[in-house]
Amino acid sequence: MKPKEFEYFVEALKSLPTISNKNASKIAYFFLEADEVFYSQFLDRLTSLKSNIKFCLNCNNLTSDSLYCDICNTDSRDKNKLCIVSYLEDLEKIEASNSFSGLYFVLNTEIKHKDLKTAKKINLEKLENMINKFHVREILICTNMTIDGELTSSYIKNFIKEKNYNIDLYRLALGIPMNASIEYIDWESLKYSIENKRKID
Amino acid sequence: MKPKEFEYFVEALKSLPTISNKNASKIAYFFLEADEVFYSQFLDRLTSLKSNIKFCLNCNNLTSDSLYCDICNTDSRDKNKLCIVSYLEDLEKIEASNSFSGLYFVLNTEIKHKDLKTAKKINLEKLENMINKFHVREILICTNMTIDGELTSSYIKNFIKEKNYNIDLYRLALGIPMNASIEYIDWESLKYSIENKRKID
Repeated sequence: MKPKEFEYFVEALKSLPTISNKNASKIAYFFLEADEVFYSQFLDRLTSLKSNIKFCLNCNNLTSDSLYCDICNTDSRDKNKLCIVSYLEDLEKIEASNSFSGLYFVLNTEIKHKDLKTAKKINLEKLENMINKFHVREILICTNMTIDGELTSSYIKNFIKEKNYNIDLYRLALGIPMNASIEYIDWESLKYSIENKRKID
Repeated sequence: MKPKEFEYFVEALKSLPTISNKNASKIAYFFLEADEVFYSQFLDRLTSLKSNIKFCLNCNNLTSDSLYCDICNTDSRDKNKLCIVSYLEDLEKIEASNSFSGLYFVLNTEIKHKDLKTAKKINLEKLENMINKFHVREILICTNMTIDGELTSSYIKNFIKEKNYNIDLYRLALGIPMNASIEYIDWESLKYSIENKRKID
């Protein structure tokens, strides 16, 4: 009984990530009840998103005014060092921690354990270009410490080893996170943390 | 460090219902990576939603090709009976149950317990128009059996009583829902259900 234009829009919403069937209806109703100002501003911003924002030609970070992102464009960064992250959110998190001064490479994906057999392997052609362009000497693989993140990490590791680049490869340190109780930490992290104990003054 | 067009769109997404900060970013990234076909179809559907769908001039149900909705336009409905619901989803649920043959009135809101003091009262001007236009004789108030639904129900009840309409007012029956275990049912519903026991053959 609902008008078809309504159903079509709900269908479109449902194909966006994190939006359930029920929430898609709620959002569609919200648009119907929203005033014209909100509605046209939303349309403008969606249009502007797609027309003004691009992925950096080097590293897949976001960029609007240039072919390359702010990080790749900054002279003061150490361009022989590369940090590979799965998602743009991870890049932001690392930048906020002020702990890395090199360039990034954003995969925008992860190899998923659950569809490992059928999944297309991730495309590392841009990574190769970047390694060559900046004479990268050191790569830190910052994918998640999950099954999918580890799969992705070892895929990248193998890719780089096979190419015989003269590059030092690093993975994030494993251990007990700050503020964690030993009682609740997983067995593997605890074991690693004990074996790799650090000296204190 | 993110481009402003990206931040603006994320802000717009965050003002939609059910979308959290984290999910707003995910959705924005999804749009960036989506192909042009999906993107322009989404824009079309959003545009079409707002330009083609209206709220029925009688009852606030959705309508696209007419000033009045399909239900108000159907000759076979019993137009002296009115069912008042809080939301369009409730109307659909009742229609799917095939248990009501009259017209509806959709509030598109509820009186909220938590901002009772400051909240504007719901606008019942269209309800009055409908009562007069269709000579309504019977109203079933189908708001939720929650605090907010009960507040809304009693507000409508008082409104109609004060106007001295010659209308029979009904509320949904209280009792134990089908498939519910007595062990887990709330005390009030159980009490009501025992006091209003029904005879079986």
